[in-house]
Amino acid sequence: MKFITFREGGQNSRPGLLTDKGILDLSGFGSLAEVIQGGAEALAKVESAEKAAAHWIPAESVTLLAPLQSPPRIFCIGLNYRDHAIESKMEIPKLPTVFLKLTAAIANPGEPIRLPSLSKQPDYEAEFALVIGKRGKHISPDKWQDHVFGYTILNDVSARDIQLSTSQWTMGKSFDTFCPIGPAIVTKDEIADPHELSIQLSIDGETLQKSNTRELIFKAPELIAYLSSITALEPGDIISTGTPAGVGLGRNPQRWLRPGETVTIEIEGLGKLTNPVVAGE
Amino acid sequence: MKFITFREGGQNSRPGLLTDKGILDLSGFGSLAEVIQGGAEALAKVESAEKAAAHWIPAESVTLLAPLQSPPRIFCIGLNYRDHAIESKMEIPKLPTVFLKLTAAIANPGEPIRLPSLSKQPDYEAEFALVIGKRGKHISPDKWQDHVFGYTILNDVSARDIQLSTSQWTMGKSFDTFCPIGPAIVTKDEIADPHELSIQLSIDGETLQKSNTRELIFKAPELIAYLSSITALEPGDIISTGTPAGVGLGRNPQRWLRPGETVTIEIEGLGKLTNPVVAGE
Repeated sequence: MKFITFREGGQNSRPGLLTDKGILDLSGFGSLAEVIQGGAEALAKVESAEKAAAHWIPAESVTLLAPLQSPPRIFCIGLNYRDHAIESKMEIPKLPTVFLKLTAAIANPGEPIRLPSLSKQPDYEAEFALVIGKRGKHISPDKWQDHVFGYTILNDVSARDIQLSTSQWTMGKSFDTFCPIGPAIVTKDEIADPHELSIQLSIDGETLQKSNTRELIFKAPELIAYLSSITALEPGDIISTGTPAGVGLGRNPQRWLRPGETVTIEIEGLGKLTNPVVAGE
Repeated sequence: MKFITFREGGQNSRPGLLTDKGILDLSGFGSLAEVIQGGAEALAKVESAEKAAAHWIPAESVTLLAPLQSPPRIFCIGLNYRDHAIESKMEIPKLPTVFLKLTAAIANPGEPIRLPSLSKQPDYEAEFALVIGKRGKHISPDKWQDHVFGYTILNDVSARDIQLSTSQWTMGKSFDTFCPIGPAIVTKDEIADPHELSIQLSIDGETLQKSNTRELIFKAPELIAYLSSITALEPGDIISTGTPAGVGLGRNPQRWLRPGETVTIEIEGLGKLTNPVVAGE
């Protein structure tokens, strides 16, 4: 199933199911977060609703929003593709490098990424993200999939000058609109092997990142085991698994995001996440 | 005013006002977060309630809880006392070094700090923390106090081996119970100069950290201006300003927290935050 959050005309945002027939309104649930927290029972309700559905909203008549507007946490994994660690001139880590992105930075699919005047080096990062479905602490690596609800695309937009002005990366990656996610959360049953997905990012048609999730250094089992050895993972938590080579920082010459460009990330089975770039405050 | 969150017997947690006469039950508010969000109007209500109060709960009959159980964010400032930056063998930063601590790590006053078996180097950090009262973005340094609700004590407990095993510090500082806060949030009007407060930490009576908030490199105006230049600060956000010299990591020989010890932090005007240390899972 492909879960979205959307708005139709001037109405409130609501959760929905994206299908070949159109969108099924799931406003019986207050939000997609509620569907995720509802576990197997909620999914069964959605399945019944889908079978019984008579009314489908045409996909082109709605505005997609970030599937999760305010997840509990956004855990990001740094340097998790070998080629990106090398281009960043950083050591390949022995443990996952984990930082947080502020949830306030979330942007909708199609929403402009606003470049802050404070940064001269805004950059993109295509990432494959896990969405947690079931709470757990000390999750053993072989049980990781029990705790995953699904997968989505995340653009870990990064102001390199701010990010690297101190040792800690969070703030340089947390300007408003620096975290586009979506277009949908695709449930785990739809993805045969999450470690065998092509991932690519292009700007105005030029491919700048191109890799496959099989190249991840720490894969989903290790990431979920490691994070949950420290803190309980919660339904709705996002774990963004890191970006492959090809970011602006690592290019020769370096290249930075510019107003007027459009960034598109595509991950096999998860769709496309597209955001224009504009000058911000 | 000194705001607390407390529990009496088996009752639910509730906000309260700590006074010389005892504790005033403020359960007309759902939580202390609600008082803070209520701004000047909420404070006026509390003042009226205090004047009209006939019933005071004896302070010794309640259990204090962390004044905020789930603040929006806990921003922590690293290396913000010159002597601590030097003992940590890190450069004195030109911009604030900001990382996040997971709110799931919050512990109550008096609650045991549980040492995780994963770490061989658990350490303490006495910190003076600001609590935001009013939302704001791009707050100018001279307006910082308009956005502060009050002040509290925070122990930035840190598993040094985990913290320093990668470049990013968040996870090593976010084990459960690694963020004791309290005992109270003292409103800004009670503290004549927040940059002239003695701060000290002792373990079982031995003083290990002793400094004054005047030694902060980045003070409240710069911290609030910097953070809010990137993201809007929200009511209830905590900004922990950093720790002075004397942490276990910087001592010769190094010393780590041990089960059976009791850690006490005292900051002038803010009271004492005491937590025993036990072996955890």
